[in-house]
Amino acid sequence: MSKEEIVVNAAGRKVPRAVNGKEQVPFQGVGKFIPEGRKHGPLINSCNNFPSGGDKRAASLKDALRKCSLKDGMTISTHHHFRDGDLLANQVFDAANELKVKDLVWFPSASFPCHQHLIPYLEDGTIHHIEGSMNGPLGRFTSEGKMKGLGVLRSHGGRYQSIQDGEVQIDIAVIGAGCADPFGNANGLEGPSASGLLGFALADSQYAEKVIVATDNMVEFPCVPWQIQGNYVDYTVEMEQIGDPEKIISGTTQITRSPDRLYLADLTARFCEVTGIIRDGFSFQSGAGGTSLAVGEYFRKIMLEKGIKARFARGGSNRYLVSMLEEGLVDYILDGQTFDLEGIRSMRENPHHVWTSPFTSYNYHGKGNFAGMVDVVILGATEIDTGFNANVVTHSDGVLLHGLGGWQNCLFSKTVILPVPLFRDRIPVIRDEVTTLCGPGELIDVVVTERGIAVNPLRKDLQEKVKGSDLPLRSLEELKEEAEKICGVPDRPELADNIVAVVKWVDGTLLDAVWQVK
Amino acid sequence: MSKEEIVVNAAGRKVPRAVNGKEQVPFQGVGKFIPEGRKHGPLINSCNNFPSGGDKRAASLKDALRKCSLKDGMTISTHHHFRDGDLLANQVFDAANELKVKDLVWFPSASFPCHQHLIPYLEDGTIHHIEGSMNGPLGRFTSEGKMKGLGVLRSHGGRYQSIQDGEVQIDIAVIGAGCADPFGNANGLEGPSASGLLGFALADSQYAEKVIVATDNMVEFPCVPWQIQGNYVDYTVEMEQIGDPEKIISGTTQITRSPDRLYLADLTARFCEVTGIIRDGFSFQSGAGGTSLAVGEYFRKIMLEKGIKARFARGGSNRYLVSMLEEGLVDYILDGQTFDLEGIRSMRENPHHVWTSPFTSYNYHGKGNFAGMVDVVILGATEIDTGFNANVVTHSDGVLLHGLGGWQNCLFSKTVILPVPLFRDRIPVIRDEVTTLCGPGELIDVVVTERGIAVNPLRKDLQEKVKGSDLPLRSLEELKEEAEKICGVPDRPELADNIVAVVKWVDGTLLDAVWQVK
Repeated sequence: MSKEEIVVNAAGRKVPRAVNGKEQVPFQGVGKFIPEGRKHGPLINSCNNFPSGGDKRAASLKDALRKCSLKDGMTISTHHHFRDGDLLANQVFDAANELKVKDLVWFPSASFPCHQHLIPYLEDGTIHHIEGSMNGPLGRFTSEGKMKGLGVLRSHGGRYQSIQDGEVQIDIAVIGAGCADPFGNANGLEGPSASGLLGFALADSQYAEKVIVATDNMVEFPCVPWQIQGNYVDYTVEMEQIGDPEKIISGTTQITRSPDRLYLADLTARFCEVTGIIRDGFSFQSGAGGTSLAVGEYFRKIMLEKGIKARFARGGSNRYLVSMLEEGLVDYILDGQTFDLEGIRSMRENPHHVWTSPFTSYNYHGKGNFAGMVDVVILGATEIDTGFNANVVTHSDGVLLHGLGGWQNCLFSKTVILPVPLFRDRIPVIRDEVTTLCGPGELIDVVVTERGIAVNPLRKDLQEKVKGSDLPLRSLEELKEEAEKICGVPDRPELADNIVAVVKWVDGTLLDAVWQVK
Repeated sequence: MSKEEIVVNAAGRKVPRAVNGKEQVPFQGVGKFIPEGRKHGPLINSCNNFPSGGDKRAASLKDALRKCSLKDGMTISTHHHFRDGDLLANQVFDAANELKVKDLVWFPSASFPCHQHLIPYLEDGTIHHIEGSMNGPLGRFTSEGKMKGLGVLRSHGGRYQSIQDGEVQIDIAVIGAGCADPFGNANGLEGPSASGLLGFALADSQYAEKVIVATDNMVEFPCVPWQIQGNYVDYTVEMEQIGDPEKIISGTTQITRSPDRLYLADLTARFCEVTGIIRDGFSFQSGAGGTSLAVGEYFRKIMLEKGIKARFARGGSNRYLVSMLEEGLVDYILDGQTFDLEGIRSMRENPHHVWTSPFTSYNYHGKGNFAGMVDVVILGATEIDTGFNANVVTHSDGVLLHGLGGWQNCLFSKTVILPVPLFRDRIPVIRDEVTTLCGPGELIDVVVTERGIAVNPLRKDLQEKVKGSDLPLRSLEELKEEAEKICGVPDRPELADNIVAVVKWVDGTLLDAVWQVK
């Protein structure tokens, strides 16, 4: 890539001036970019063009795609509520391939190993590039420079923002639903492919020109509650199977048994106790990973001891969080993604288990969002530099292996804590520079490692609160040195002079680029 | 009004070329106007401009209006869920008047006698004109030619359509909610000013540039369920009182005791029985007026006798409909407006009592709507002509006294029945020509009077089904003659050569004009 095509952004990262032919705005600093213009307006429809009785069923997925005038170069969106059990996105591109359509943009809310099935379509030109996370096999494919266009990574909130702002215009959205009616009202609460909620498909339904709802559980109108509103839907399709129930359920929702990870979780919870973050009526979000789940369990212990409860918990739900709701330790779960069957059951039965969406929780180009209201959020990272900047998408060898998820969006919570091991496979996590910048250090407050806790110097309030406590406080520099004493100073990854993907910030600006691995 | 400014539309009615300076499209026939262009996009916001903790409270309504930069000529919207107990809309214009702002457009979803309070503001130029129904005192004021601009009457669905399509751009929406949190999440289910749902304010929240949520019952975040999403809200306001509970509840939800009306209701239900409209799994909508309620009760009798149930009932809910839901005679209530406390309780407690909105039910510029799926709808009319065309907004003396409500939207249901008395106060209901055209005759299927039932000749299927039954079948001409024998041939109203308001069709075209009374 020539020098003229590259610009250095406010975070000091090299990013391209244009991506897939579209001009870009480089990252300008947190809160610095002020958007102009108006939200995207899809074409106005008329009931006159829809069946008056409300039955929008097409004969098959292929038929529906044909009716939506699928053609070369279109942007096709899907969602990831079926996770690694998604049988729908693959069928969409099977159909596109049969229809001999080329150069499509796939715009999923996330991808999973099951989508390896799409690699031949990336190779034969059915799919030009992916805008969305490229996990596992697709990430490696991209890292190796094999994708025709550049990958575009966005957070969940950034995806909503990009659709709302018209940055990405979806031609056809294909929404898989555990339950739907012929009109297109749909939810993820019932049926063999129940996935809990369908919030990741909300923007797609609101803003795509054409919307297809596919289900393996068609019910009589009205499908209640309607997480997706049929009034946004053009066609509905009954299919044999859209999801593999065993794989829709996330495999990660087990509390870690590793003593090291449990110690990290315990330290994190103790930090929250000492600093008074855990107080009556507080709120928290922690992920579905083993360490995060353990943090939740330590929170539970502290809350029980103190006789207090949380006002709400944000984030993916699972059986641990559901039990806290049912025990009265949490007033509300504001759920963005249901990770297990207990989560789905609770969401179906309990009005205090509320379905949210990237619009309510994460969209930065809205009139506020829920992420900013959360007292403390517990997140992961693959790398952190001594300026608290963090990476979640690439490993230290430069390979793209993870999506951004809601990670960037959660950085706006009142206190952001990253519990990470000092090293993984003898590769230090704390570095001079992160391979890929995903989150600016000014938004990351605390790094918890098994060798000590580093508090961001910007958070003088927190530093004040931990003074005199028995918490093992360290600087990131000290922690880095300690890791390097054990593992040696890590080499920088060998990367080619070629960008394969970009990382957007929550406001649509370019935060960093991902470079081809050699 | 000069001849050049008037055009005759496809229904043969004289309508103005422009309304309040905006060019208009004359009605082109049912389903003939195909909209072009894109949905309205409000300005893109940024979380950066909103308090990160989510507390959007302004000190007062006036403070919130000032923060929204209220100025001359703006369009201010309110909703009518508080009905005649609305204490909010009046306070909005009190504040505007104190702030010396002029030429506002008031864009309510409906108005009630309590809004008589606004007449001085219409006189002194605070309010330029009203786009919305002008009932009672405001209707008379308008009819007398006293409003500075032209009134614009729209159906509930037409109001959503006009906002979505950008035909009306709301500068500031003021949404009163029985319950809200400081972020702006709101519902009408709890609190002293509980009104049930808030669906009439949905479009306002989605499309207005600035949104204020006012409540007399501020609760801690999160206010669940959020019928109005805080992510659309700019400011929240805590107020002493926004509604008068006794008047929020509609006074009309009593079954008629008039033997004539009961007979009309009975005839209507029998018609539905004979024609097979009442069958297992059917759907119906009937209003909250005395006759409509009685029809529902006759439906109940027939359903119990036959041992069948309805899949859903649409429309305003009340204790009669709620009891049918609770007795299992109706699977779902798809509710657009809660008329009494039983309706509010049921909506709060019963997941089968579903809140809908003009978007789901009525918007004609969507991908279908619920109205078209309803098997039978029972509506009223002030006048009907022999071509089945009907009027609901003016009386036969030409005075504007009612709004359109959802009436036009419901005409798209599978069978539309108007039970009306043959005459009211010795004025015949069936005329050679209606004073104001609100609904084209091709959409009205059946007129039921105490002297017989007229089936629209376009509905050969229904005419076939009633053949040989004991139903008293007549033509509209026969019914008109009979009424005129009793009451005499009515005079046409004496109207001035001056338009005071217009009636929009569901697609935004001009269906008719309302002329000044002499």
